[in-house]
Amino acid sequence: MSEPYAAVEVIAAKRDGGELTDGQIDWVVDAYTRGAVADEQMSALAMAILLNGMTRREVARWTAAMIASGERMDFSAAGRPTADKHSTGGVGDKITLPLAPLVAACGAAVPQLSGRGLGHTGGTLDKLESIPGWQAQLTGERMLDILREVGAVVCAAGEGLAPADRKLYALRDVTATVESIPLIASSIMSKKIAEGTGALVLDVKVGSGAFMKDVARARELAETMVALGTDAGVRTRALLTAMDVPLGRTAGNALEVRESVEVLAGGGPPDVVELTVTLAREMLDAAGVAGPDPADALRDGSAMDRWRRMIAAQGGDPDAPLPVARHTQVVTAPAAGVLARLDAYGVGVAAWRLGAGRARKEDPVSAGAGVEWHAVPGDTVTAGQPLLTLHTDDDARFTGALAALEGAYEVGAAAADRLPLVIERIGG
Amino acid sequence: MSEPYAAVEVIAAKRDGGELTDGQIDWVVDAYTRGAVADEQMSALAMAILLNGMTRREVARWTAAMIASGERMDFSAAGRPTADKHSTGGVGDKITLPLAPLVAACGAAVPQLSGRGLGHTGGTLDKLESIPGWQAQLTGERMLDILREVGAVVCAAGEGLAPADRKLYALRDVTATVESIPLIASSIMSKKIAEGTGALVLDVKVGSGAFMKDVARARELAETMVALGTDAGVRTRALLTAMDVPLGRTAGNALEVRESVEVLAGGGPPDVVELTVTLAREMLDAAGVAGPDPADALRDGSAMDRWRRMIAAQGGDPDAPLPVARHTQVVTAPAAGVLARLDAYGVGVAAWRLGAGRARKEDPVSAGAGVEWHAVPGDTVTAGQPLLTLHTDDDARFTGALAALEGAYEVGAAAADRLPLVIERIGG
Repeated sequence: MSEPYAAVEVIAAKRDGGELTDGQIDWVVDAYTRGAVADEQMSALAMAILLNGMTRREVARWTAAMIASGERMDFSAAGRPTADKHSTGGVGDKITLPLAPLVAACGAAVPQLSGRGLGHTGGTLDKLESIPGWQAQLTGERMLDILREVGAVVCAAGEGLAPADRKLYALRDVTATVESIPLIASSIMSKKIAEGTGALVLDVKVGSGAFMKDVARARELAETMVALGTDAGVRTRALLTAMDVPLGRTAGNALEVRESVEVLAGGGPPDVVELTVTLAREMLDAAGVAGPDPADALRDGSAMDRWRRMIAAQGGDPDAPLPVARHTQVVTAPAAGVLARLDAYGVGVAAWRLGAGRARKEDPVSAGAGVEWHAVPGDTVTAGQPLLTLHTDDDARFTGALAALEGAYEVGAAAADRLPLVIERIGG
Repeated sequence: MSEPYAAVEVIAAKRDGGELTDGQIDWVVDAYTRGAVADEQMSALAMAILLNGMTRREVARWTAAMIASGERMDFSAAGRPTADKHSTGGVGDKITLPLAPLVAACGAAVPQLSGRGLGHTGGTLDKLESIPGWQAQLTGERMLDILREVGAVVCAAGEGLAPADRKLYALRDVTATVESIPLIASSIMSKKIAEGTGALVLDVKVGSGAFMKDVARARELAETMVALGTDAGVRTRALLTAMDVPLGRTAGNALEVRESVEVLAGGGPPDVVELTVTLAREMLDAAGVAGPDPADALRDGSAMDRWRRMIAAQGGDPDAPLPVARHTQVVTAPAAGVLARLDAYGVGVAAWRLGAGRARKEDPVSAGAGVEWHAVPGDTVTAGQPLLTLHTDDDARFTGALAALEGAYEVGAAAADRLPLVIERIGG
C-alpha cells in the first residue's frame, strides 16, 4: 500500500462540508478507475458530493481528472472548425439528426459522440440504428475521414474516452446519486472536452420530460458546464429550452428519423425546425464560421445532401424503408375543444413502455415502437378525432402505455401556460 | 426479481430528506443482509442517513430490523435479574473487568457480550485474552451455565447475533459513515437488546479519547440509546463520563488486567474505583436488586472471589503471571511543577502504536504492550522524575509512540480544567 491518500479521509472531508484538494481529487478519480478505491467508497463520496456540493474549482479539477483517466481525441486535421452540440435529454428530441448535417452544410465540422437512451428519454444512436445498415461504432481514424469527406459524424464514444466517467456513471445509476449538478456537469463535459471539439453548444432541457424540472436548477447546470468548457479552451454556450411539451410530432426511433428527414426536406414540425436552426446558428457562431444561413440550407437541399452522405458513410441506406411496428392503436379526443396540455413525461414513458426505450442498459430497443401525436397544445380538436397513435411490436404493451398517458393530455377551453421554446441563453 | 422495493428509491427518499417507512426500513436491512442490496447502495444510504438524520421512529425501526436479522438470546433462566453495561470506548477503560464480577457479587447476573479494540481505544476481550488460558468464544448454553454458577460472563458475540449490524459496521468503517448518531445508537442497541439483558447502563464517554468529543453530541447519543432500550422493554439509563484524561494509570491489555485486579483487591486508582462503584450501583438499581453495596463488595473480597471463578470458568488461570513486554522506556518530567494535562487521545494512540491495539480487524495485539503513567493531572512532579513508562515487544515502536505523546502532556503551574468524572445522568 503506497497510496498517497486514504479513501476514508477523502470521503470524510467532503462529508464534513470541506473542499477537496487538487491532490485528493486527482487521486480518488484515478484510484477509483484502477480499483484501489472500492465502489462502496465512491458511492459514499458521491452521496456526500450530492448533498454538500462542490466549489467551481473542485468541479473543474474533477472534470480534468476524468478526462485524464483516458485518451483525448484531436480533430484539428478535419480541415475546418469543429462544433458539437449536447442535449441533456428529452422526449421527441431528435434535433441532432437534422442538426449535424445542417451545420456541416454550412461549413463547420461536427464530430459528435452520442449515447443511447435510458429511461423515458430517447438516445440518438438508437434512432440512427433504425436505419437499415447504419453502424454506430467507428475508429478514430474513420471518424476523421468522414469529418473530412462529409463534415459530420455521429457515432458511439470509444471505451478509451473518460473511462472514469463510464464507471462512475454506472455506479451513480444504482445508488441514487445521479441528480447532482457537479456530477452531471463533470460527466457531460469530461466526454465533450476529451472529444476535442473546438466549440460546443449545450441544449439544457427544462420541464416534466427533462432531468431538470425547473429553470433555476437548469440554469445552474448550464452555467457550471459553460464555465467548465470555457476554462478548458472550448468555446461553450448553452440554451435552456422547453421540455414540458414533447418536441415535434413523434417519440420513437424510426418515427423520429422519418420526422428528421421531413425537416431536412424543408418541411417538418415548426418547433423542430426552429430549434434546429437556432442551435445551428449558435454552433456556427461559436465555431467562427460565417457560411450560408441554416434556414436556407434546409430549403435548398444542401443539408439533405449531407444527411444522405453521412448515413451512407456509416453503412446506412438513406433510401431504404424504415421499420414499422406490427401493431398500432389510436387514442381519440374525449370531447370537442382545444388541446390544453400534452405532457412530455407522460408521452416519454408511453413510448418507453411501447418498446422505444430500455429499462436496463443491456436491453434491446424496438425500431418501430413509439408515439405519434396528431395535435399539439393550442390546436382545436373535435370529439372522437385521433389524438395519438401508439406503435408497438408487442400488443400486450398498449395497456401500460395507455396508463402512462392517463392525465398526460387534456382537452379544454384553451391551451394551458407553457414554456417558450428557447427560455434563456447563457455564455458566448 | 420480486423485491417489494427498489434500493434506488429508498436511497433517494433519504437523500431528499424524507422519512423512510417501516416497510422500507425492514426491507432494506433484510435485503442488505442477504445481498439483494449491494454494498455500494447501502454505503450511499448510510451517507444520506449520516447527513440527513433519522427520526426517533426510524432509528427504532432500523434497530428492530437489525435485531430481526439474527437470533435473540434469553437469560431468563439465569435465576436472577440480568444487568449489563456498555461503554462507547475510551483509553484505559478497563471498567468491565472489575464491574462484572462486582455486580454478580451483589446479586445480579451480568451477561456481557463484548468486543475487541479498533484504533486507539482498547477492547475488553483483548484485555481478558492476556490472561493465560482464557477463552472468549462460548456457546449460548455455556454462557447460561456460567451465569447460573458464577453470575457474570464476558465473552464474544456469536455470529448469529444481529448479522446485519456486523455487515453494516464493516462497511461503515471503510466509507466514513461511522460518525452518525442514529447508526451508532442502532448498532450498539441492536446487539444489547438481542443479547436479552433486562437492565442496561450505558457509559457514554466524552472527550479527546472518546468518539464523542463534546457533551452535546454525547447527550444526543445517550438519549437516543436510552429511548431505544426503553421502547424495547430494557430498563436503560446512561451516564456521560469523562474521557479527556485516560482512566486509571495504565492503557494496554495485561497492564489493565493487573490494575483491575488491584481494584478487586480493594485498592487501585481512585477514578477507576469510583466509576466502577457508580456503574455497579446504577446496574443494580436498574435491575431492581437490593443487595450489598458495591463499595463493600470490593473491600470484603466477594468481588475478587467472583472474578477468580469467572476467569476460571472460561479456562483462564487467575493465578498465572501476566505477560510482560520485552522492552520498556521511561519518559521523564521536563521540569518541576504540576502535571497540567495528560491527553487521553495521545496516550491511546501511543499504546496503540506500541502494540496494544490493531490497525486492521485481522491484526493480532500484544498482551504486554501499553503505557503506564506515574502521575495524573494535578500531581506535583520534580524535574527528571519518571512520568510515563512505555512497554512494547518491538523497540522500533518507541519512536512512533513518543511522537504520539508529543504535546499530550504538560508540566506547568497548575492543572488545566478537566471534565468531572461523571458529567451527567440520563434516564432511569
